[in-house]
Amino acid sequence: VNSLYSVHNLPYCAFDGAVGVRVGGSLLNLSTVESAGLLDAGGAFAGATTLNPLLALGRPQWTAIRAALVALLTGETDLAAHLRPVAGTRFVLPFEVGDYVDFYSSEEHATNLGKLFRPGAPPLLPNWKHLPIGYHGRAGTVVVSGTEIVRPCGQRLAGDAPEFGPSQRLDIEAEVGFVVGVPSRLGEPLTPASFEDHVFGVVLVNDWSARDIQAWEYQPLGPFLGKSFATSISPYVVPLEALHFARTAAPAQEPEVLPYLKDARVGYDFRLEVRWNGTLVSTPPYAGIYWTPAQQLAHLTANGASVRTGDLYASGTVSGPRPDQTGSFIELSWNGAQPVRLDDGGERTFLQDGDTVTINGTAPGPDGTTIGLGEVTGVIRQARRVGPS
Amino acid sequence: VNSLYSVHNLPYCAFDGAVGVRVGGSLLNLSTVESAGLLDAGGAFAGATTLNPLLALGRPQWTAIRAALVALLTGETDLAAHLRPVAGTRFVLPFEVGDYVDFYSSEEHATNLGKLFRPGAPPLLPNWKHLPIGYHGRAGTVVVSGTEIVRPCGQRLAGDAPEFGPSQRLDIEAEVGFVVGVPSRLGEPLTPASFEDHVFGVVLVNDWSARDIQAWEYQPLGPFLGKSFATSISPYVVPLEALHFARTAAPAQEPEVLPYLKDARVGYDFRLEVRWNGTLVSTPPYAGIYWTPAQQLAHLTANGASVRTGDLYASGTVSGPRPDQTGSFIELSWNGAQPVRLDDGGERTFLQDGDTVTINGTAPGPDGTTIGLGEVTGVIRQARRVGPS
Repeated sequence: VNSLYSVHNLPYCAFDGAVGVRVGGSLLNLSTVESAGLLDAGGAFAGATTLNPLLALGRPQWTAIRAALVALLTGETDLAAHLRPVAGTRFVLPFEVGDYVDFYSSEEHATNLGKLFRPGAPPLLPNWKHLPIGYHGRAGTVVVSGTEIVRPCGQRLAGDAPEFGPSQRLDIEAEVGFVVGVPSRLGEPLTPASFEDHVFGVVLVNDWSARDIQAWEYQPLGPFLGKSFATSISPYVVPLEALHFARTAAPAQEPEVLPYLKDARVGYDFRLEVRWNGTLVSTPPYAGIYWTPAQQLAHLTANGASVRTGDLYASGTVSGPRPDQTGSFIELSWNGAQPVRLDDGGERTFLQDGDTVTINGTAPGPDGTTIGLGEVTGVIRQARRVGPS
Repeated sequence: VNSLYSVHNLPYCAFDGAVGVRVGGSLLNLSTVESAGLLDAGGAFAGATTLNPLLALGRPQWTAIRAALVALLTGETDLAAHLRPVAGTRFVLPFEVGDYVDFYSSEEHATNLGKLFRPGAPPLLPNWKHLPIGYHGRAGTVVVSGTEIVRPCGQRLAGDAPEFGPSQRLDIEAEVGFVVGVPSRLGEPLTPASFEDHVFGVVLVNDWSARDIQAWEYQPLGPFLGKSFATSISPYVVPLEALHFARTAAPAQEPEVLPYLKDARVGYDFRLEVRWNGTLVSTPPYAGIYWTPAQQLAHLTANGASVRTGDLYASGTVSGPRPDQTGSFIELSWNGAQPVRLDDGGERTFLQDGDTVTINGTAPGPDGTTIGLGEVTGVIRQARRVGPS
């Protein structure tokens, strides 16, 4: 059994009108397993095509189902009829996405973008260390890993006037996303301490970004079409229970945060790898993220906004302090000034048609093992002609 | 029969686990009507609890169902068993909201806010006349008219440091929203000409806004918690077919827009009324909106982003050129400098606990009649204490 996907991990996914779990190099079809009476998930699997019924159950049931699953997988039951190889499986989006929020919680990333976009000024804006800056993205264009990414067209500034055409500065953002299971009620904020009661698990996220479109449109209401064409997520939702040994101290915060944001400073030692046409170009470390997912959850509900089953909120681009730890190509190529060399001899600043980007992730498991977070991959396809021309 | 809701209108709604249509002062339960075999909507009503099945059908079926409905209502069938009074009905959200986008398409509103927030600078930013500025709001907190609005807490700047507490600058935004029926495919932009093929109808929108929270958080990624606590919509979705006679020439655009945004300049003569504790304080005219809903739809899909059944996109605050035509209280009170006098002798700048705001709307119908767009109302409730304190 591949140690990345041992019984210590058990990430959930969806494929072929069913939900499943990865075990080693195989996928166990949980829908048929429950239908066959081999596991009792209260019906969350039997008729399910997405993980939403599981997500809605809550922590006690999540724990019970995981225990039952471990018992099943380590027992004597012949599961052959319910197993299939991972290779060749066409995954679908593992859950129906409610609202999608993207934060901006890496100090290094925010600092790098500040230096690039506001040279000479303090790179972090005055609010950045007081609250986790974030915005709503487009939930309807969250797609599963492997979905082809059509190069977006849009407006960009060319000299003094805007022009319309395929983005010339197509980029990635390597992130970690948190999947809400248990909803909250409108008008009732959550505290950081309630994070594990509401959040089921994590996915890897690539928030594809068209920097030229974004730069022209984003004042004063923030990113819109520069981001909304696609956000890819990994096929696996790794449950928080698998990530107990990945917990690590989150960075200390100075200045002190307001009381509603005070938390136990629990971060996660997720280690990302970004490959551009196969070349490892960056290794963003999630552990250094300034705002924890518990703080992000408390902040996004502080005004009484409710969360729903299937809501997704992402860390924002994960960048570490070293140049080879940045989670976007605008940082890696320093706004195009420092081309990135690929193993095939090519050089890149932003994405070209036909390029493939794959982000994978791992985390420490028990007893020196490693938990695999899977991967999120996408290939860039040529822009389509659009409109009257 | 109240002429606002004659057979020329027929707005759809949802209540009591059923969908319905308003006729005069009554609601016809379409779910029971279809179940009883009195109308054939292909099942879109019989088992429905929201309008989503109707929305997904498309223009030919929308037209056919409307014709059948008019025939039913003007015929000999006894519908008494399926009718109930509007008064006393507890409406629910008429459709499940997919993504919610809020535009910023009133030139007067954008100009007013530019003057207030960037005094001395050109009030419109350079991009404003080239593209319909917009952003994604929180779909999960779109609520039906009548839902109480709990005053949001949040961070605001007080002197040099942020503090946390109930918003002190709670405001409204009077808007018109467009409800997407027929989805589009990822990577395939829509043109302005396809507006009527995809959009089913309109709702009234009050995008409640906490200006102090918004001002502190919105750089660089746009509004987030200042808006996400609640967005109220009218219980009725008025079909575009009812609004044929409300069509009017939209404002000419200078400079010329890029080809993908060129449209037939079809606007709508929606007339809004804003009442604050019963006092009519503003009459925002939608007809002057710079960017048409056809352009907004083309823009929001120009990058290949798809739309889904139930997506909602709103005009942005509707403000006319006169001071008594502004669609927000920050404009009406000129940032609090000019208090608004209410009929009960009170004065207001921003919303106080217990205040009620009601926005209603009408549009020209055939033969001198008037189409009612219903109303969207909400009362402000005291903020709740939150978090460790």
